[in-house]
Amino acid sequence: MIEGKILNFLRKNKDIYISGEMLSEKCGISRVAVWKHIRRLKKMGYVIDAISHKGYRLLRASDKMLPYEIQNNLRTEIFGKEIFFYDSVASTNDTAYALAENGAKEGAVVIAEHQSKGKGRFNRIWISPKQTGIYFSCVLRPKMPLKEVPKITILVAVAVAESISKTTGLNIKIKWPNDVMINDHKVSGILTELKAEQDEVDFVILGLGINVNTPKNVLPSHATSISCENGKPVDRVALMRMILEKIEQYYKEVFKRGHFNDIIKKWKQYSYPMGSKVRINLHHKKIIEGSFHSLSSDGTLLVKLTDGNIKEISAGDVEIVKQKND
Amino acid sequence: MIEGKILNFLRKNKDIYISGEMLSEKCGISRVAVWKHIRRLKKMGYVIDAISHKGYRLLRASDKMLPYEIQNNLRTEIFGKEIFFYDSVASTNDTAYALAENGAKEGAVVIAEHQSKGKGRFNRIWISPKQTGIYFSCVLRPKMPLKEVPKITILVAVAVAESISKTTGLNIKIKWPNDVMINDHKVSGILTELKAEQDEVDFVILGLGINVNTPKNVLPSHATSISCENGKPVDRVALMRMILEKIEQYYKEVFKRGHFNDIIKKWKQYSYPMGSKVRINLHHKKIIEGSFHSLSSDGTLLVKLTDGNIKEISAGDVEIVKQKND
Repeated sequence: MIEGKILNFLRKNKDIYISGEMLSEKCGISRVAVWKHIRRLKKMGYVIDAISHKGYRLLRASDKMLPYEIQNNLRTEIFGKEIFFYDSVASTNDTAYALAENGAKEGAVVIAEHQSKGKGRFNRIWISPKQTGIYFSCVLRPKMPLKEVPKITILVAVAVAESISKTTGLNIKIKWPNDVMINDHKVSGILTELKAEQDEVDFVILGLGINVNTPKNVLPSHATSISCENGKPVDRVALMRMILEKIEQYYKEVFKRGHFNDIIKKWKQYSYPMGSKVRINLHHKKIIEGSFHSLSSDGTLLVKLTDGNIKEISAGDVEIVKQKND
Repeated sequence: MIEGKILNFLRKNKDIYISGEMLSEKCGISRVAVWKHIRRLKKMGYVIDAISHKGYRLLRASDKMLPYEIQNNLRTEIFGKEIFFYDSVASTNDTAYALAENGAKEGAVVIAEHQSKGKGRFNRIWISPKQTGIYFSCVLRPKMPLKEVPKITILVAVAVAESISKTTGLNIKIKWPNDVMINDHKVSGILTELKAEQDEVDFVILGLGINVNTPKNVLPSHATSISCENGKPVDRVALMRMILEKIEQYYKEVFKRGHFNDIIKKWKQYSYPMGSKVRINLHHKKIIEGSFHSLSSDGTLLVKLTDGNIKEISAGDVEIVKQKND
């Protein structure tokens, strides 16, 4: 808290040196305490110049995804108001799940610079190399029946796709339900887990993994990162902020104002074209083949089977089948 | 395991004394080991007579809800094949949830003679006095989308209502979604909790609390027990067995054969009559009033509002409003 105060003060006055005495007054702490907090900020990666008799000056912010950075100018009311930052965790989803069980509020975010056991859908691993991606999980406490939950997945996919598109201008696609793709390679995955009682949600953990500045050689062959496709590094903090803001905006639109149709429309703008050949793995066993038909008004996938019938899919793993001459 | 073997042997020969030597041979253990296992069985509440030079004879089974008792002649393939028995736990649901997270199989049952923090819906307490009720939780691993989960609640309510009705001949009612009532007093409650990933269920914990031989004075005023209404004690083990068998039967009918309509029909036989006045607490805040109209084909509640419109309720706490002259 105090560090955030010191930081904000240095940030606002970054062209001049601020004396330890002034910081001590502004924050209501001793000059020794100021010095200790400055030392901690430096440890977090902030580059702060200190000259005796002149004071302190912020030269460069930390390049970590620190709460002080993300919350700086973050225009949200719910998402990210509380951020738990870790250099490394096993899985941000597991950490957030445990926090939620202990009462963490809606919008609380767990963010890590590295995950040792990052989780993807269907018990897959999400490769999470240090300080190159965005790995975070958010606690949601929506008062809704279970059947509404899949809408969250759809709206978050739209928020992520739009944010990456706006930031880079790249051509972004969404693969149902929520994989964000660039040039047919996965750049972001979403894993929602939830705990419910009867038909009422207790909490949802919304987990996001985004390959931002990740070098190609550490990613699986079907994946890519934004910087690989864009040719230059992307400001992770700014992207994270935009994603939180968009998720909040769409979350409110859908669950407070009931405008899920608008999200469906946006989702379709990013979807693979109607007729794209798909192979769908249902529950790891049964496989069906067909072509992408549409998204239903509930967010389920409508697939046209080879016999012409339309099948509704609510859970499954979709693979876009490349055609010859594609 | 060995105790189960010894018990079964004594049970099959309960009119005669079985020598320690024979038990030692049948079970492939030493006579000292036989003696130790017999001592453990006695501690569990089995009354076993032991006469030197004659051997052992089972006089009376334990009156605890022991796995050996429940599994004796249990005609199921999934439910109760594995039973974890406890004299006391905080909550069988919490214990089963933890077991499920550690990989417990579908059908695994946690049963306790007492719960110190028995859980009801909406964070309520389920009063669970020692050795008078049936308190158990079962791990389910249904491969189904989230929207199907409420069907479990409905089918289990039917299984419990039918089992109590068959055992006692009493007039049983179900209050939506799954409270089992006798003379407008609650005799059984069901709490389903679940963990899911995206739109796919990871596991469901099905928790049941039934006031079987519970004295009225330890129950809340809106509750009753089977023996209070029936005027005589009920065999808890036999009732438990019947419930497990019926749950398995209906679970298979609904999710393997897709016959949910048959369950809906059965549910309606036990429901309060159409037109019964109801007050429904939605999410602990909003309250609506109307009359019971029907159960939808998905198991949601259809309520006729005072303006004549039909409202569909998927989660809420229903109170039957007593009319004058009722």
